[in-house]
Amino acid sequence: MNKIVLICPERNDVSKWVESFKKENNNIEVEIYPNDTDREQTEFVATWNPPADAFEKFPNLKVIASMAAGVKHITSKKIPNNVKVTRVKDDYLNYDLSYFVLNALLNYLRDMPLYFQHQEEKIWDRQAYQRPEDVTVGILGFGNIGQAIGKLLLKNDFKVLGWSRSKKDVEGIETFKEDELNTFLSKSNVLVCMLPHTPETEDILNQELFQELPKGTYLINVGRGAHLQEEDFLEALANGQLSGAALDVFKTEPLPKEHVFWNHDKITITPHTASITNPATIVPKMVENFQRMQNNEPLKDEVDLEKGY
Amino acid sequence: MNKIVLICPERNDVSKWVESFKKENNNIEVEIYPNDTDREQTEFVATWNPPADAFEKFPNLKVIASMAAGVKHITSKKIPNNVKVTRVKDDYLNYDLSYFVLNALLNYLRDMPLYFQHQEEKIWDRQAYQRPEDVTVGILGFGNIGQAIGKLLLKNDFKVLGWSRSKKDVEGIETFKEDELNTFLSKSNVLVCMLPHTPETEDILNQELFQELPKGTYLINVGRGAHLQEEDFLEALANGQLSGAALDVFKTEPLPKEHVFWNHDKITITPHTASITNPATIVPKMVENFQRMQNNEPLKDEVDLEKGY
Repeated sequence: MNKIVLICPERNDVSKWVESFKKENNNIEVEIYPNDTDREQTEFVATWNPPADAFEKFPNLKVIASMAAGVKHITSKKIPNNVKVTRVKDDYLNYDLSYFVLNALLNYLRDMPLYFQHQEEKIWDRQAYQRPEDVTVGILGFGNIGQAIGKLLLKNDFKVLGWSRSKKDVEGIETFKEDELNTFLSKSNVLVCMLPHTPETEDILNQELFQELPKGTYLINVGRGAHLQEEDFLEALANGQLSGAALDVFKTEPLPKEHVFWNHDKITITPHTASITNPATIVPKMVENFQRMQNNEPLKDEVDLEKGY
Repeated sequence: MNKIVLICPERNDVSKWVESFKKENNNIEVEIYPNDTDREQTEFVATWNPPADAFEKFPNLKVIASMAAGVKHITSKKIPNNVKVTRVKDDYLNYDLSYFVLNALLNYLRDMPLYFQHQEEKIWDRQAYQRPEDVTVGILGFGNIGQAIGKLLLKNDFKVLGWSRSKKDVEGIETFKEDELNTFLSKSNVLVCMLPHTPETEDILNQELFQELPKGTYLINVGRGAHLQEEDFLEALANGQLSGAALDVFKTEPLPKEHVFWNHDKITITPHTASITNPATIVPKMVENFQRMQNNEPLKDEVDLEKGY
């Protein structure tokens, strides 16, 4: 049966997705949960933040495809036995995240948040600035995306370090593995969090980690809000252990109006905008995996459910 | 006579300059105008914004060295016959200006001025963004600094165009010469002004020029405030011919409190901070020219007084 069901209750408008599927392969029927039909015949679903009980309604499900970066929204739910999960490896995801991080870094080096505030107050006051060549950026989470970020920063004259569970080999970048975390942290003037969201990485940005950083390190979080222990973070800003932060992700999104982050003068907030998923680049890969499933071929970008990413 | 006189009435603190000279060559005596002595013996002065009559007080003057980028502050004064003028070619000047422009571009592509404003108002509202690969940046003034900017932008995936009086040859960059200005303008999504300040370039950013740009072009001025015809510029912002601007230089600096630019929501203001001159990198080149003068050798980075740069 040539059918894909989209399960994304938070999205009001999925027309761009439907359009992209039609454009990629007109023979595939796309239905939208919960208004889909003949569930016994559905083998492939694409989803973002599915309801907890959604998957069990498909007795012959074979593949769950994530519609954006991150799979925690899937792996935190009950996944039926023998069902495979795929994740998004969008080339533009890497591209967009990398330029977002570069921008956050340059804004930090040049004190742009202060200048925007000064403009508001009509204050003319030059600040000394830092140069890329004098700054060491540690990338926490050095998989596919982390390495793309690292390469762009390297090209822009930053010194780059990468940390991941298993040691990676990237030219020009000093890499560290699981048990070398503290050494990695001690050398980072800026810490970029690009970890996957797993039980082990939850609240990993906490006091214990911050105290291993050089005093005054700047934090950029483009991973997940769940990585940040918020009380420890505010304390680290208060005592100068961290000099500031650019946050694009939050425990609750949209960030609630009453949250203290909004008005904190050492925090720059963007509304989870580092990379906005583009159906046109993701759908072709989903269709490819759909066909691989039909042909009993190995899937691309399959998630290791043990590891959680 | 081993003496250099500094003429920079606007600077209260020249200690870093004096220190740098001492460090570079301890045999050179440095005196500060107007408290300098034995003017008949002074052959070499270094200056920023000298008084109009300063040079004629030195009957045996041979060389006037600019203490920062730009020589208009010298060439607009009366220069005695046969006195040579040198300008600053600081490697970090190129480096710092290039990263400043890259940062201004990324902030524009990502709508960062709007996000800073939204944070103030606790508004969570994602904007679509542009990618470097989809943006063509025209650099108006494609000399030494303009080319450095162009190369950095090219490395970061922007399409780059360069315009200068005489055509330059830089790999990967489409260049235009004097009479091709309108073609160059018609292809630029972002216009970066990096011109020298001469009588011909004064007020060059005016209505006539703006109307040759595609509608909605973004302007980055890191040249001089004198390049911008302010009424025409405000009109171009109002009618959408320009979508916005990042200005680092102004006709009057500091920008007066009552100036309309401060509160304009399409203008990002920085206080002439794209590149801050560092005596430690400029003084060695001044000392080299001082010695070349003593040995009757050709000077480095000499200004063509006919052209004005």
